Amino acid sequence: MKILVQKFGGSSLTTEDCRMRAIYHMEKAIDEGYALVVVVSAMGRKGDPYATDTLLQLVRANGNQLPSREMDMLMHTGEIISATIMCSMLNARGIKATILTGGQANIVTSDDFTNAQITSIDPSRILQDLEESQVVIVPGFQGRTADWEITTLGRGGSDTTATALGVALKAETVDIFTDVEGIMTADPRIVEEAQRLGMVTYTEICNMAHLGAKVIHPRAVEIAMHANVPIRVRSTFSDDPGTLVTTMLEIGKMGYTVHDRVVMGIAHVPNITQIKVANKEGSYDTQLQVFKTMATNNISVDFINVNPMGVAYTVHDEMGEKAARLLTEMGYEPQLLPHCAKVSVIGAGMTGVPGVMARIVEALTQEDIQILQSADSHTTIWVLVHEMDMVKAVRALHQQFNLHVQHK
Amino acid sequence: MKILVQKFGGSSLTTEDCRMRAIYHMEKAIDEGYALVVVVSAMGRKGDPYATDTLLQLVRANGNQLPSREMDMLMHTGEIISATIMCSMLNARGIKATILTGGQANIVTSDDFTNAQITSIDPSRILQDLEESQVVIVPGFQGRTADWEITTLGRGGSDTTATALGVALKAETVDIFTDVEGIMTADPRIVEEAQRLGMVTYTEICNMAHLGAKVIHPRAVEIAMHANVPIRVRSTFSDDPGTLVTTMLEIGKMGYTVHDRVVMGIAHVPNITQIKVANKEGSYDTQLQVFKTMATNNISVDFINVNPMGVAYTVHDEMGEKAARLLTEMGYEPQLLPHCAKVSVIGAGMTGVPGVMARIVEALTQEDIQILQSADSHTTIWVLVHEMDMVKAVRALHQQFNLHVQHK
Repeated sequence: MKILVQKFGGSSLTTEDCRMRAIYHMEKAIDEGYALVVVVSAMGRKGDPYATDTLLQLVRANGNQLPSREMDMLMHTGEIISATIMCSMLNARGIKATILTGGQANIVTSDDFTNAQITSIDPSRILQDLEESQVVIVPGFQGRTADWEITTLGRGGSDTTATALGVALKAETVDIFTDVEGIMTADPRIVEEAQRLGMVTYTEICNMAHLGAKVIHPRAVEIAMHANVPIRVRSTFSDDPGTLVTTMLEIGKMGYTVHDRVVMGIAHVPNITQIKVANKEGSYDTQLQVFKTMATNNISVDFINVNPMGVAYTVHDEMGEKAARLLTEMGYEPQLLPHCAKVSVIGAGMTGVPGVMARIVEALTQEDIQILQSADSHTTIWVLVHEMDMVKAVRALHQQFNLHVQHK
Repeated sequence: MKILVQKFGGSSLTTEDCRMRAIYHMEKAIDEGYALVVVVSAMGRKGDPYATDTLLQLVRANGNQLPSREMDMLMHTGEIISATIMCSMLNARGIKATILTGGQANIVTSDDFTNAQITSIDPSRILQDLEESQVVIVPGFQGRTADWEITTLGRGGSDTTATALGVALKAETVDIFTDVEGIMTADPRIVEEAQRLGMVTYTEICNMAHLGAKVIHPRAVEIAMHANVPIRVRSTFSDDPGTLVTTMLEIGKMGYTVHDRVVMGIAHVPNITQIKVANKEGSYDTQLQVFKTMATNNISVDFINVNPMGVAYTVHDEMGEKAARLLTEMGYEPQLLPHCAKVSVIGAGMTGVPGVMARIVEALTQEDIQILQSADSHTTIWVLVHEMDMVKAVRALHQQFNLHVQHK
């Protein structure tokens, strides 16, 4: 059986028109001979009565004291409701469709309510239903524990459902339908000449996703990566094939290597505060004390630079004051620089290619952009800049690495 | 453990005010030392986004081709949503509440989707949760098959959930909260002096319910009756104890017998068409042919009188024309009398009491009301009258049997 998993996000299910576009893609896959598994999110429009936000509002208006176990019971209904609407539409068009809830599809998870991890999927029930139905619809974002407690998978949950099912079913591809054409070389709202990428590696897209290009959740990509199931990120509203996400090896087999381009894209994250803390006189455990305090107070840190005089790191702008207060209480004199931005240059092809950092520095210096901090891994270089320089920096780097030229 | 089951219908959950009234009754039960199981319906207001009707509308707007299995998946979300709201409100008031879905509460049913029958309830999970929570909330109307297919129980489903749980948990009482004060001697919109009954038998309330007094579903009553679990029908909006529904024996133990009143109430059902069919010349199987045709065409029949010349029966006004057309096609010449009403005189005490029918005839004749047909069982006498006489008939009978005098 040739299996395809298609996932439709909330923005693909909001209106009758959107839903008809989704149906179009399903019918096309059926015509191409696929046994089709469709994963749906809750309907997405803000204020829509069955949207996740609206369900939450309802509880907030009524005491807002729902235990997390019962919160999952509430939240999982949104996806079931949109599944039934798609099921009804498919059947009305003569396509036999069946729904299996996350629990019925045997998506078994941990009991970390509101943020459960998938521990196993037994695909036998889905495979059995695919023998009798043209489409099996699975409401995304949900699973169950071994004891049939209802759980939800947290942020990006429907993406995770889709790729986890893709792996369990040995699907040919997992298509993630969204409202953009695929993975872009940069945010097209900032860089007009940004291009849709034809292929990227799992690692690259993870870095893009972590860094603010909200197309697919990193957790979902990691699951697909481990089993080497290709993902296609594409638009519900066009026939464009979108961006194929796979391994370097697979890309190589297609007669193309990631080394043909050193850099695949530029990502950016604004609203960052840089914090510098100098060691206290005669004390050397600053790093330990600082990060212990941040962790116990639930403040995420990033961009950590330790040096003999002290430590520099970043937090979200919203957390800046809280972090400063805690540090002051501990006897430090933190220096805060709010309104910074992290700009990332990403490319699996940059590994071992000399001069990438030099090109970054050159591009930014030419535009009089100050680099406040930098860091790098083998596939990404990050620079911290003032937020007012962010757009200029993304454009300069996009230009520097010739990303306006169309890529495969 | 002293267990109480409370069921709140949609009209008791519609507004914040209603829900606070419901909470008031729950808190009172907890204060009285009960381990409390609460069954909730979906929120009731027409147009409310989570009301049953609104969920159905959503599907109707989107192809209206939902298989019954998937219909149940959709419909059961309404009750889950109202359960989470009540759970949140209780926890906000410091009362520990947990939800078990119908499936998790082990309400196991047949797989007759949209109209499943409860086949067993294993109460162990509820009992276990009652050790740790002050309230266990169970969304009504839903269950699961042995294979964890989601099912719903059809009309009156939440009442059925409540009494079935009452039986399984050996509850002291099942309280059915509604928007009326209890079981009335007649519809107070028609008979101003109608009285709230203090006690009625299971059989009496079944007859009242079947006959248009929409307070509790007969299926729910039958379940309670078989295990002899008392039901209390009462108002969410008052402290009135409502009507106790139990056996004649129990009522007797309380120093009162149903024989103290021959008749307990008068019910009525309008919109009835009487159909008379004469035998065809030389043919004697009219009855068989007529009822076979009605059955295969899904027309419910009632009030059947067979006589040597032919047969008389009633159908709902809406079905009159269809029935007539079918009969004409079969070569009969049906006589239709639309706009009739069935008026019922109900009382477990009438068994063996002579002269009840005589008193009915007397009361109606005095008011110049024509009796078109009649029928009787050991606890009920039915008369068919013209619909324009219905109100007058109910009032005359109410008066005749002294129902305006307050009852226990």
